[in-house]
Amino acid sequence: MKDRIVLADAVNSIGEEIGIAGWIEKRRDHGKMIFFDVRDRSALVQCIVLPDATEAYEEAKKLRGEYIVALKGLVKERPNSSIQEDNPGGNIEIEIRSITVLAQPKGELPVDVSQQEMGLQLETLLNYRHLTLRNEKVRSIFRLYGVILEAYASHMRSRDFLEIKSPKLLDAATEGGANFFKVQYFDKEAYLAQSPQFYKQAGVSAFERVFEIGSVFRAEPHFTTRHVNEYVGLDAELGFIENFEEVMDELEKVIWTMMSAIRKKGGKEMSIYEKKVPEKIAIPRISLEEATEILKKEYKKEIEDGDIDAEGERMIGDYVWKKYGSDFVFLTHYPKTIRPFYTMPSKDGKTTESFDLIFRGLEIATGGQRIHDYKQLKKSIESRGLNPEDFSSYLDIFRFGIPPHGGWGLGSERIIQQLLGLGSIKEAVLYPRDVKRLTP
Amino acid sequence: MKDRIVLADAVNSIGEEIGIAGWIEKRRDHGKMIFFDVRDRSALVQCIVLPDATEAYEEAKKLRGEYIVALKGLVKERPNSSIQEDNPGGNIEIEIRSITVLAQPKGELPVDVSQQEMGLQLETLLNYRHLTLRNEKVRSIFRLYGVILEAYASHMRSRDFLEIKSPKLLDAATEGGANFFKVQYFDKEAYLAQSPQFYKQAGVSAFERVFEIGSVFRAEPHFTTRHVNEYVGLDAELGFIENFEEVMDELEKVIWTMMSAIRKKGGKEMSIYEKKVPEKIAIPRISLEEATEILKKEYKKEIEDGDIDAEGERMIGDYVWKKYGSDFVFLTHYPKTIRPFYTMPSKDGKTTESFDLIFRGLEIATGGQRIHDYKQLKKSIESRGLNPEDFSSYLDIFRFGIPPHGGWGLGSERIIQQLLGLGSIKEAVLYPRDVKRLTP
Repeated sequence: MKDRIVLADAVNSIGEEIGIAGWIEKRRDHGKMIFFDVRDRSALVQCIVLPDATEAYEEAKKLRGEYIVALKGLVKERPNSSIQEDNPGGNIEIEIRSITVLAQPKGELPVDVSQQEMGLQLETLLNYRHLTLRNEKVRSIFRLYGVILEAYASHMRSRDFLEIKSPKLLDAATEGGANFFKVQYFDKEAYLAQSPQFYKQAGVSAFERVFEIGSVFRAEPHFTTRHVNEYVGLDAELGFIENFEEVMDELEKVIWTMMSAIRKKGGKEMSIYEKKVPEKIAIPRISLEEATEILKKEYKKEIEDGDIDAEGERMIGDYVWKKYGSDFVFLTHYPKTIRPFYTMPSKDGKTTESFDLIFRGLEIATGGQRIHDYKQLKKSIESRGLNPEDFSSYLDIFRFGIPPHGGWGLGSERIIQQLLGLGSIKEAVLYPRDVKRLTP
Repeated sequence: MKDRIVLADAVNSIGEEIGIAGWIEKRRDHGKMIFFDVRDRSALVQCIVLPDATEAYEEAKKLRGEYIVALKGLVKERPNSSIQEDNPGGNIEIEIRSITVLAQPKGELPVDVSQQEMGLQLETLLNYRHLTLRNEKVRSIFRLYGVILEAYASHMRSRDFLEIKSPKLLDAATEGGANFFKVQYFDKEAYLAQSPQFYKQAGVSAFERVFEIGSVFRAEPHFTTRHVNEYVGLDAELGFIENFEEVMDELEKVIWTMMSAIRKKGGKEMSIYEKKVPEKIAIPRISLEEATEILKKEYKKEIEDGDIDAEGERMIGDYVWKKYGSDFVFLTHYPKTIRPFYTMPSKDGKTTESFDLIFRGLEIATGGQRIHDYKQLKKSIESRGLNPEDFSSYLDIFRFGIPPHGGWGLGSERIIQQLLGLGSIKEAVLYPRDVKRLTP
């Protein structure tokens, strides 16, 4: 639109007549004056319409919440702002001279999005997602999400990783076969990638260091607050490592770049949720064996099958917070039996050179060193009762030679979930997919 | 790896002993001396092993192309470089004192990737993709691709667009129903998104300006040099527009930011392909009606069904190059009959407020203004013989109100295809998918 400026810039136009556009957030009449707040992508500003602005005044009477308007008006200073402090439009008021309604809701809206706390059930929040996304507190989630995506990509580039995009349609359900969605692909069957694992390893064999931001599909019939069936993975893989500590070192750098970006660009959003950005301290690294001891001793919790469940992760999160003041902890050396066949075994023959990264009690990343030797990998496939023939294309990577390497998969939405303390990961996904939900 | 520096940094270590790692590219023996080139992610450097470095010399005798090694050696100046000029490692040579083989190919390699021109058929290039990706000329493609991804995201952010990630699993095959891949989704059927169209429109209704970089799936049984069945779309949608010229203005800015990034960061890659980055000039905007006249008059080509085919696009590309010196051209006002139902009709009732962007004779983007009025959209759905009930969740966006808006879908791989003059788009996709190809 010509002659439109965004509300955050209107503060520089005091005494001038400007054009603005946005959504009506609240209208309230005081005597003969009509007040309403207008919101655009940059800010929220109070507008006032006086009865002597005859045409605009008549239009203003019709305005309701979520009407979408183009306005013209005079910018005035407003020393005693009632709008929240960190809103850039808080210290001005616009005296409206002209109103054009661009669009308006049909009938009553099912949800009042102008309330910061909408107090909705998760199902309602998601059923009316097109509308509830307009709520300031909900929008904050996705502004922070944008910061995380930006921080990840720019950090990885600064560390000399090449951004790749790997295929999501695969010819075989690899990695063991479970939890894949099947696709009708012309006259063949295909499967949706449940990680870019094999392709980022291939990436290492050509480009040494690669990262990917991409869709991940998991056909897991979970009903939890921390699972969705489609999410965005922040993956990376790097060659020429000596051990998996280097992978954790690299991931730790990612985390602090992200936290620093959130601190810099997400202050308003964090304060809406009354949450603090984690302070940078060296992330403790605790073996699963040690963690098992801690859980037994400190929390009277026994661990089964050598794995740690969601409750155990929360307890370890609690433990490192109390003991080290750390929001994060690496759990390392998971048993061979619960890690994929490509995981590098540790010298003890039982555990692996692998880790999970726990953030405030929730696993947000998993990674480690991978087997890079062709023969060892083939044996590992066989030892799991799998057929190397089914992995022949993957095995080619190793047949042609690949440097020692490792990497991680980091769940983008879980970072936001934990940063803001959201009750469910689904709140951190624009349009989440679960066993029951494919819409909107 | 500790004590490893990348080859591009070795130039700053003349006279020092350093550790490096990488791939053996070529070995050649001159008398008693052994020479080989080593490549890592940053550069290519010539190494020399003298007979008096006894252990290293014995190891060096075993080295073949694509062996992966960790090396130690003394950096020496090398005034008369035979390695290409723009290689940062061209002016040094490393006298090797120690060699550790980290990995090596099993048996003979099926392709010699050290040749700049491998001279392979497309099928061979793709069948041995894990290996052919190591070729310098092939790697150049994906380094440029990384530049394009970075430029797009950073440009969109600078224009105040929020990055979103929309679901790729949909409950219904919308937009008409054709060309969707079907997915078995638990006990339901789902479809793979053939564009983020509906979700980016929903994005506008909440965030005003959104962009997405994401997977796009098209079940089109095409066998052409410009189609793949899975690609990465660079999408955007913006609210509060007055007309679709503003959408073209915005997209034109994207193009020039990308070209400037390629000029800045992709000089070496462009020169390997002996191609020039397009010069910035105002992109001509030609209506399809005018284009039809031009094709008839200048190229004796008749257009059928009001659409322009691939040959016609090449001719128009040729025309604007000759007439305006422009690598790009916007074709505008496509007929209603060949545009989706959500496209804003023009005032003439026959054409639409839509465009394609042609780059060197190939369509790389499509976009336009969308219908934002609920009733008009519902009518448009009906006029196509579609049932508004099937679009009820989509129609909710408009029922709640949305600003006038428009946007585009830009094919990331086609930009690279045209920049480098690749024979097929498949060369610009890491692991392309077509009707016959789901592997590697």
